[in-house]
Amino acid sequence: MVQIPNPPASTQSPAPRSVPTSADVARLAGVSRATVSYVLNNTSAVRISEPTRRRVHEAAKELGYVPHAAARSLRAGHSRMVLMPAPPVPAGPLYSQFVHDFQGALSRLDYTVVQYGASGLRGDDAARAWAELRPVAVLVPGPGLGPEGVDILKRSGARAVVTLSSERVEGAHALLMDHDGVGRSAATHLYARGRRRIGVVVPDERGMDMFSVPRLAGARDALRDTDATVTVLPLAFTEESAAELAAQWPRLGLDSVFAYNDEYAMLLMRALQDEGVRIPEDTAVIGADDLLLGRLLRPRLSTVRIALPFGRDLAELVDRAVRNPGAAPEAHELLAATVVHRDSS
Amino acid sequence: MVQIPNPPASTQSPAPRSVPTSADVARLAGVSRATVSYVLNNTSAVRISEPTRRRVHEAAKELGYVPHAAARSLRAGHSRMVLMPAPPVPAGPLYSQFVHDFQGALSRLDYTVVQYGASGLRGDDAARAWAELRPVAVLVPGPGLGPEGVDILKRSGARAVVTLSSERVEGAHALLMDHDGVGRSAATHLYARGRRRIGVVVPDERGMDMFSVPRLAGARDALRDTDATVTVLPLAFTEESAAELAAQWPRLGLDSVFAYNDEYAMLLMRALQDEGVRIPEDTAVIGADDLLLGRLLRPRLSTVRIALPFGRDLAELVDRAVRNPGAAPEAHELLAATVVHRDSS
Repeated sequence: MVQIPNPPASTQSPAPRSVPTSADVARLAGVSRATVSYVLNNTSAVRISEPTRRRVHEAAKELGYVPHAAARSLRAGHSRMVLMPAPPVPAGPLYSQFVHDFQGALSRLDYTVVQYGASGLRGDDAARAWAELRPVAVLVPGPGLGPEGVDILKRSGARAVVTLSSERVEGAHALLMDHDGVGRSAATHLYARGRRRIGVVVPDERGMDMFSVPRLAGARDALRDTDATVTVLPLAFTEESAAELAAQWPRLGLDSVFAYNDEYAMLLMRALQDEGVRIPEDTAVIGADDLLLGRLLRPRLSTVRIALPFGRDLAELVDRAVRNPGAAPEAHELLAATVVHRDSS
Repeated sequence: MVQIPNPPASTQSPAPRSVPTSADVARLAGVSRATVSYVLNNTSAVRISEPTRRRVHEAAKELGYVPHAAARSLRAGHSRMVLMPAPPVPAGPLYSQFVHDFQGALSRLDYTVVQYGASGLRGDDAARAWAELRPVAVLVPGPGLGPEGVDILKRSGARAVVTLSSERVEGAHALLMDHDGVGRSAATHLYARGRRRIGVVVPDERGMDMFSVPRLAGARDALRDTDATVTVLPLAFTEESAAELAAQWPRLGLDSVFAYNDEYAMLLMRALQDEGVRIPEDTAVIGADDLLLGRLLRPRLSTVRIALPFGRDLAELVDRAVRNPGAAPEAHELLAATVVHRDSS
């Protein structure tokens, strides 16, 4: 980073001022602190005259007073914060879009959504770190949270804990991601197209195993007790790794490959084409995620389309759970997988 | 979403319990609340015996007590929370990686990073919503925050406000994103390659204008007082939109195009190739971002490489600013743009 020299005066910060409190607002407006609280929290239980309301709002504005969400939630007994830990790997396009929609839907229901940055903490330690922010609901992507962690979150005031994973966790609502089903669909498709020596790409990148392990297991499961074989193909998301794998292709003797997702499929397809492997004649290729880029490839990429939940449906589930914290945990199947057959398989 | 019926018993939640407080921990451990606070906050100012420490930790564990980050920060006068509002559009791959690295670097410096979900709020209203969480620092991507907003954040206790934008905002540290420079580099390259009728893609998608407007302005700027013309090409990120644009190609009479970024370049290049336009003979194409996918295209895509800040450097800037809130705002140039010339231009 190149630092730019500062202009000499005007932009210098003044010494930090003290943070204005609701007591300051009360003093300036000539009302009690309770009145300030009633007005700024829009309490309808107490009748307050319009001129008084206006005086409080004007005083708050003049002082730059902003209510403290946490202090307010301490009083109210709960916050409106929905906390989502960030996944352990940078988000892909499908997940980014899902998070964006989900956040929009929750904020329309008047929740504040925060994504908690990857902290390097795991299991109960992670749960304790999240609990410190006193969220009213927590949506945990991926595995790692156990019943103890759910308990820590609930004891700290979370009314709903929702997991986005392949397994149910006791005490939590479950959005069950059927990554096995993605692998199963891909392998079943390749088998039905007459392929018998089937490769399955497993990304080398750290943190991806939470998706790639069940996808591989699903593919194996679909081909159990058939005459097909499964070959595991480790692949890093680099041109070099793909070229290395493609160079081994004659020796591997595969007639098809499930390439983990569309991005890895694009990478591998290019390397195979550069090696003179004809797609789909010599090797059929199928990806997953149904990204636009797959339709832009030639041959057009076959893929497994994955239906993530609609942000709105999920936001409503969270809201329902928050309103009714004693209800039995719900479980929903997600990630319905359907094959989109194009030209590469 | 398909709901799965619940098993009849065991997973039913018990009625919510009350949230344990530090007073509960003090009672169980047989110590004062102050001692609980000293032990759990690792205060070194007060000497506390090892057996007492152990008793407090055991009591906290038994009760499932987690300190309240906000209550603690109320006492300490500041939090360790760095707040990043989410950008108004789903994050692209370059930005996702940057955020991931930045969060990792800050958490190694013992900060908690939270991304504040797209709330639909703008300007000072957004600043007030962020201020309610009482972050110690705020990193704002994109324009929209003015000096008033910076002031609201600082008055609520933020020691550092950092903007990631093309303009400096009074009172805030600035990471200046030179999107103009991206457009300037692309246009200068096309001109140097002998192209004179230059198209510039402007995405139709909402929220992208914060990048596309300066990129277009930079391209125009680079070609001012030359014999080249600039044609604005609106394009949505769909095959249909690209096919429509490609069908008009003969009428447009362009010899080159700066396609906003590599993803739009890939989309448009495919549509042009499908229309029989030869790349680069008939039309030169250049993208931006230097994504891996551009190297996978044939011809290989020329691009503008953009150097985002290293997460660690930026984390250190935030830490420095938090430790020294009275210091003059720093400004750093980001997004150094360099052309990577491959085969498509």
